[in-house]
Order: sequence, then structure tokens, then C-alpha cells
Amino acid sequence: MKDDVSLADVGEDSLIASIVARFTVAPAAPPVAGPARPSMINIGPGDDAAVLDLPGQVVVSTDTVVEGYDFLRTWSSPQDVGVKVAAQNLADIAAMGARPMALLVSLAAPGDLPAIWATRLADGLNDECHRAGARVVGGDISQAVEVVITGTALGVLERPAVRRDGARPGDVVAVSGSLGSSAAGLALLMGHLVPDASAPPFVTSLVEAHLAPRPPYRAGAEASLAGASAMIDTSDGLLRDAARIAVASGVRIDLDSGVLVPPDDLRLAAEMLGRPDEARGWVLTGGEDHAMLACFPPGSVLPASFRAIGRVLDRGDGPARAVVDGVPWGGSQGWVHFRDGA
Amino acid sequence: MKDDVSLADVGEDSLIASIVARFTVAPAAPPVAGPARPSMINIGPGDDAAVLDLPGQVVVSTDTVVEGYDFLRTWSSPQDVGVKVAAQNLADIAAMGARPMALLVSLAAPGDLPAIWATRLADGLNDECHRAGARVVGGDISQAVEVVITGTALGVLERPAVRRDGARPGDVVAVSGSLGSSAAGLALLMGHLVPDASAPPFVTSLVEAHLAPRPPYRAGAEASLAGASAMIDTSDGLLRDAARIAVASGVRIDLDSGVLVPPDDLRLAAEMLGRPDEARGWVLTGGEDHAMLACFPPGSVLPASFRAIGRVLDRGDGPARAVVDGVPWGGSQGWVHFRDGA
Repeated sequence: MKDDVSLADVGEDSLIASIVARFTVAPAAPPVAGPARPSMINIGPGDDAAVLDLPGQVVVSTDTVVEGYDFLRTWSSPQDVGVKVAAQNLADIAAMGARPMALLVSLAAPGDLPAIWATRLADGLNDECHRAGARVVGGDISQAVEVVITGTALGVLERPAVRRDGARPGDVVAVSGSLGSSAAGLALLMGHLVPDASAPPFVTSLVEAHLAPRPPYRAGAEASLAGASAMIDTSDGLLRDAARIAVASGVRIDLDSGVLVPPDDLRLAAEMLGRPDEARGWVLTGGEDHAMLACFPPGSVLPASFRAIGRVLDRGDGPARAVVDGVPWGGSQGWVHFRDGA
Repeated sequence: MKDDVSLADVGEDSLIASIVARFTVAPAAPPVAGPARPSMINIGPGDDAAVLDLPGQVVVSTDTVVEGYDFLRTWSSPQDVGVKVAAQNLADIAAMGARPMALLVSLAAPGDLPAIWATRLADGLNDECHRAGARVVGGDISQAVEVVITGTALGVLERPAVRRDGARPGDVVAVSGSLGSSAAGLALLMGHLVPDASAPPFVTSLVEAHLAPRPPYRAGAEASLAGASAMIDTSDGLLRDAARIAVASGVRIDLDSGVLVPPDDLRLAAEMLGRPDEARGWVLTGGEDHAMLACFPPGSVLPASFRAIGRVLDRGDGPARAVVDGVPWGGSQGWVHFRDGA
């Protein structure tokens, strides 16, 4: 497909055909435990609906990204946007302790969007679905003023769902995945530190972590198998998402600043921006990392990919909330749509 | 909630809380056949993902409506838009012969959208889900320049899926639901014949059919039980959707103009607009009726809600397509995104 062909030139039917051709079957990911994955897909894109063999309980979640708010076409390649849409949605499935299986994607876009942008978006979606052991099984294309992409992810549970409301005093709070990398990458981009051939590797990897996050999906099912009492993915920042578990569970979560030390790449990025104190804020409040934040009963053996970062406490007479070293954090509490938004 | 409170005033969390409160459990619709509906919902909105007990094969589909393209806030009430989003998505589930069970909805909207618009949208979604025996189980809210709403519907199959590619020569083509009502309602609106207290009832009902379609969901499972060989819902017009079955099945579909006579309300609307010849075009090419268009093997007993409108023929050396009385229809072939679009 030539670069200057628009969606309007191609038309809906051929665009869909060229996109569907990209959604190959994912290699079956080995299960964390239990029987091998059954043959899942019966009917994929091309009929009124996809038909899936999903053994057991089904987990489903939806999430939207909007051009100008959640990504900029000047910063993100279409592949990046595809990875991001898939990652946001599939991480919600993993955070229930479920195995991601399928993704549906709806693209609303202006008619003058290059058709190749849409097909490369499909490449990014397909790539991240493969990482998660899932597959794109359906979608929709509509016309709109701006690019709006909604994903809906489905997964299956092999054990009871790990909800937000199961944390109990005495539990260990632990995380798998990076904290603050996405926020650091965004700060670098906003500081015009766009990665090029001469950029240090940490700049490239942090910017990539922001534009195309790669969540640790398997950690979700591993936490479930290890007996996790509560879990969430860090989409709005560690403190805000920990507070969601605290409120849902009626407990206090106390995070340990001694083990939440910013890693070298975040410190280097903050220094490069001339704001060395910012790295700690990225770790505590930066959104869109999609790390798995879980609570484990006392005595649990944490899965290898998790590190302990705090404790669940009785809230006593105080509010259910997340604190750091026993006191509320003074900085921003994370991202809130419509309130902090542009 | 006061009328002048915007999404930005309310904030994401309280808006979601007031919307979730509207999504009550649907009364269990009696099954078309087979055992009573099992208890489906385990965890609804409020965690990372909804958990559903969906016995058997799962059918899933997604569809988006965009302000300015698929609806206008000057014409549609927010309830109308909610009904339309639910109907478009749930009809795709019914058209596989499945039973609609659940809907997820993503709303992208400007911060100055009245919050009450969003809660009334939720009322419309909830109302049409109840009609279909389904429930809203999850969603997402984001900021955008225009209102973009994506629904994702899930259903369960009690028999094999009724696909588009199963029509065979000799089958009867039949339809359940109205044809052309949505197109007639749109034509009335575009002719400034907006219903008011003095409008004849057919104006009100046709405009309502356009703004808030009410598909015959049960007809989908009834067609499956009666042995339907192929099925689709008429979202892009009878001829275009019949052609989709024809192409997928490698057959020719011949519709009978003698039984596709425009009903009185369409004739009256066309006369009121001074274009009496237009009514037949609405029946053959009008989109968004979401009627169930199905093929049945010879000798089938059609479900009571279906009427025969044509035959499936061998295509011989000719193309797989849909014709009327043996010849291609001269008018528009229905709606194509990006091509016919604004």
C-alpha cells in the first residue's frame, strides 16, 4: 500500500481485508499452570461477530485512547499506538489473574488518515497480542474528526478472579514490572529530548516505555497461582492504584520508600532534565506503566518477577488509603481524566 | 444532577459511580429453547475487568457511533443514542443465532458535555440491554473533541453459530423486523419534518426507528432453532447485506419485489416529502434497521416473526450477488463508510 493513499481512497471493505490479513494466530503461550490452551478461535473477523471457545469464566474489559489526549501522531508511530491500545486492555485482563485470549478493536478516524497508518496500527496490535498470547478477533472502522481507538480484551480464568477488594492487614504489597518509566519517557519527550541515533540507550528505552508499554502479563496469572489476595495494574500511578485497592478492601497500604528508590535510568533522565528530585515522583505517581501491583497473604512465596514494596495495615479509625513510610505523599496523586486533563 | 454540570465539573470517578448505579440486572429473558439462563454476572463495573459465567461458546462484536456522522445531538436525545449503541451491537450477536448477555461501553467526550447527557445515555443503554435480556457490565470514559461511543457486545450460543457463508441454492430468504423505517425516518428529519405534538403517528414512529432502533433480537435465536443456514442483520441495507451473504456463500440471492412492497407508513412518508417513488428504495437499500435477514433450507418451517422475501439460487457462471426479480437493482447499494460519507 502506498504511503499517500488515504482511508477514503481505499474504502472500508478493502481496508478491513488488508488489516484482517495481519491478524495471524498467536503461537500458543505455555500456560502458567493447568492444561494446555485449547483451540480458541472458531470464527474470526469477517462475520457479524467472532465466536470463541473460552473454557471457564470469561474476563472482559474495555479502554480507549484518543489522539491529542493519549497520544500524538508526531510522537507515536502507528505501531506504538497499536502496542499501547493492546497493552492497556490486555493488562486489565492479566490484573484479574486471567490469561489474555482475544482483543477487539474499533478505529474511528478522519477519511484523510493514510491507510498505511491503519495497517501499521494493526501490526502493533498484532505484535503486542502475540506477546500476551492473545489474538485480534474482530473490530470496526468508522469516520470521525480525530483518531479514537477502543480496545476490548477478553481472557479466561483458571482460578478465582483476583479482585481489588481482597487485601487484608498483614499482606505483603508487591509489584512486577517497572514503575515510573512511562512518566520519565513522557517528561523526556516534553523536554524535547526525542531519541535519535546519538541518544543514550536509557532515553530510547524510557521514551519507548511511554509510547509503547510492554506489561508483564504472565505476572498476573503467576500472582494468582501464588495466592494473591488483591491485584490491579498501575495505569494511573502506583499511589492512586494502591489507594484503589486500599479503598475497595477497607485497609491502609503503607509503601516503603527504602525499596522504591528510583533506578538508574530514571535518575539519569531526571538529571538530564535538570530536575533530579523528580525521579521519586515518577515512581510513586507516574501512570501508564501497567505493572502488576498485588497483595499476598503473610508467608506467601512471591513469584520470582515480584518485589515487595510495602505492607497492608489495619486502617484503625483512619481512612482507607495508601501512604509512604506511614504518611500521605505530598505530590500529585496521579492522573484523573477531565480534572487534570488538557 | 443539575443540567448545567459538565463532565469536567463532576470528574471521572463520581461520573462513573452515577452511571454504574443505573446498570441494574436485567430480568432474565425466557430462553428460546434449552435450559433457563444461568446466573451470569459475577463482577460487574468497578474492578479491572468484569467476570462473566458464559456457558458454552462466546460470541463477541464491537461497533462505534460518532457524533456528527452517526448521530446529531440536535436530533437524538442521549437516551436515543444509548439505545442505538446497544441495538447496533446486540443485533450483531443475535444475527449469529446467539443470546445477547452483556455489553461494554466506552464513551469519549469533550469535558464540557453535560454530565446529565452521559447519565441519560446510560439510561438508554440500560433500557435496550433489558429489551435484549442483556446487561452493561463495564466501560471506560475518556476525553475527546467529539462524542465517540464504542459498544462491545457478548452473547452465548446454544447451537452452532449461524454464519454468513451457509446459504445454499434452494434456500428461502426471509426477514424479521422492519425494512426501510430507519431510512424513512432519516429522510423525514432531513426534510425538517421533525415530530411534534401535531405530527401524524407514523412520522413519530419512523423518526424514532431511525434515532433509536429496536431490533428483533429473539428472532435471531428463533432462526437458529428453525435451522437457518445463514444470517446477517441489515445494518447497511437489505441489498448490500443480502449481497454479503451471497458473496460469502458463493450463491445468487433473488429478492421478490412483489413481497417487498413498501408498507403504508413508508408510502405516506414518501408522499409527505413529495417523493413517492422513494419508498421502494428505502426498503431495498435503507440501512440501520437491524432486521434479521436469514436463509432457511427448503421445507423449513419459518419462525412466526419471519416473512419470506426471496430465494437463494445457483450463481451459475455469474457473480455471487443479490438481485431483485432476477436483475440488479439500479439504485444505491447501501452505505459505505469513507466512500459515501460526509
